Amino acid sequence: MAHYPLVPGHEIVGRVTATGSAVTRFRVGDMAAVGCIVDSCGTCSPCRHDLEQCCEAGVTFSFNSPDKHLGGMTYGGFSQSYVSKEHYTLRMPDTLDPAAAAPLLCAGITVYSPLKHWNAGAGKVVGIIGIGGLGHVAIRIARAMGAHVVVFTTSPEKMEDARRLGAHDAVLSTDPEQMKRFASRVDMLLDTVSAKHDVNMYLQLLAIDGSLVLVGLPPEPLEVGAFNVVVGRRSFSGSNIGGIAETQEMLEFCAEHQITADIELIRADEINAALERLERNDVRYRFVVDMSTLN
Amino acid sequence: MAHYPLVPGHEIVGRVTATGSAVTRFRVGDMAAVGCIVDSCGTCSPCRHDLEQCCEAGVTFSFNSPDKHLGGMTYGGFSQSYVSKEHYTLRMPDTLDPAAAAPLLCAGITVYSPLKHWNAGAGKVVGIIGIGGLGHVAIRIARAMGAHVVVFTTSPEKMEDARRLGAHDAVLSTDPEQMKRFASRVDMLLDTVSAKHDVNMYLQLLAIDGSLVLVGLPPEPLEVGAFNVVVGRRSFSGSNIGGIAETQEMLEFCAEHQITADIELIRADEINAALERLERNDVRYRFVVDMSTLN
Repeated sequence: MAHYPLVPGHEIVGRVTATGSAVTRFRVGDMAAVGCIVDSCGTCSPCRHDLEQCCEAGVTFSFNSPDKHLGGMTYGGFSQSYVSKEHYTLRMPDTLDPAAAAPLLCAGITVYSPLKHWNAGAGKVVGIIGIGGLGHVAIRIARAMGAHVVVFTTSPEKMEDARRLGAHDAVLSTDPEQMKRFASRVDMLLDTVSAKHDVNMYLQLLAIDGSLVLVGLPPEPLEVGAFNVVVGRRSFSGSNIGGIAETQEMLEFCAEHQITADIELIRADEINAALERLERNDVRYRFVVDMSTLN
Repeated sequence: MAHYPLVPGHEIVGRVTATGSAVTRFRVGDMAAVGCIVDSCGTCSPCRHDLEQCCEAGVTFSFNSPDKHLGGMTYGGFSQSYVSKEHYTLRMPDTLDPAAAAPLLCAGITVYSPLKHWNAGAGKVVGIIGIGGLGHVAIRIARAMGAHVVVFTTSPEKMEDARRLGAHDAVLSTDPEQMKRFASRVDMLLDTVSAKHDVNMYLQLLAIDGSLVLVGLPPEPLEVGAFNVVVGRRSFSGSNIGGIAETQEMLEFCAEHQITADIELIRADEINAALERLERNDVRYRFVVDMSTLN
């Protein structure tokens, strides 16, 4: 639920301007980043296993989340500065463009974590459903992990882009003939679609023991035919961002493979126009706001 | 689809009365058994990996299945004798009561295979949803595997039976207070319900990385809320009987732990009455037909 005033921004990159006296991993001038999570209990079993996103006491998100220390709600990265705890602050590799790397803090970890958990890699056929903010980064990461990458899209005009981004195959999901080519052949499907959609036609593409992993949050329940999971021991699964240690690992993986997002860098006074374009799905693939333009 | 005449029976136990000249694993007089699968291609990747139930050329089931060698359809075990290929014939341990062991051939392997695949065992909390032909055997097998077994039932009168069968806990699933006790605590749920039902209230009981595994085949799609799989990286999965080698392994496991089904042994001339009682759900928990009474 939104609380106003609400300051968004949960993919934050910048230079450290000051450090507390107990901080050891950052110095003034370092590149640093903050993602979705800025606090958690630190003591429950998930926190102790680097799964802060599953904190039993509840995660504090970087914006619009009850602030357990200061009261009120947290405000996000659409600001000239941001104060964060050292444990929840990421080291940002110098070799990545800071603006293009910013979307990795949410979109990147949201796709990296399940791709790694479900063993995307050499010898695996990995399908990415949807090419948007999450999907276009997922194509690059799955490709860098060594998987055979197949993209499923409803947009004929995005088929070429899928290949440019690194996909080995692109499938128009509205064409049953093209879909049939991959029946029972895909080891893992990463489903980035946040609207209600038919998952059964995708479940039928999964090989034995394959998983469809939802990373979007369609507001309505999705209908799953029992037959589509029972036959072939398939799974309909989900994944939600990732922990702090894994986010750091993801940034280093992206630096090693020079993976960033495709972005349009805008000024703060262009935000309203950008939001209107977002509603029309008119961005390839992420707007990033240059906060030095905020005044 | 049913083809008539149809002879059912896919949980078949008996003594070998004759063997072909190339048979090496059976002699006349041995106890033997036939389950759901009587043929498969033997050469596809699933067959080579002991997953005959996933044969790419299609499994031949023990009844009402196209017979690739003789033409027509296969007829099941409601008969005085049954001819089967050696590879698809199981060795039946002498230490199990043949009548009570018969349901292991389908009910037993249907629950053993997923319990083993999803690592039910010591330190795990395993929930069994539904106490019927499958569920009552699942309780015994999960208990013997070393898991902490929790049974979920809509029938107050079955709560005591759950404990008698070996469950550590029994939960009335219609009582939200009882359900809440297990929120986010169950590692694996084995869902034996074949009617349409609400799986979301069960998904919420799963711990991080937990799986609900469907072994029934509800005819209508089940609604899954995205949130219930995304949060906690949970899975809604399925499983379908098991391969021949695993069925043999299950029989030996059951012999070691003296696990059989609770049955009512009936004569062939009682079948119609038994079917009427089945429709009223009036059996604890499986009817077995003594085929020596067929004439």
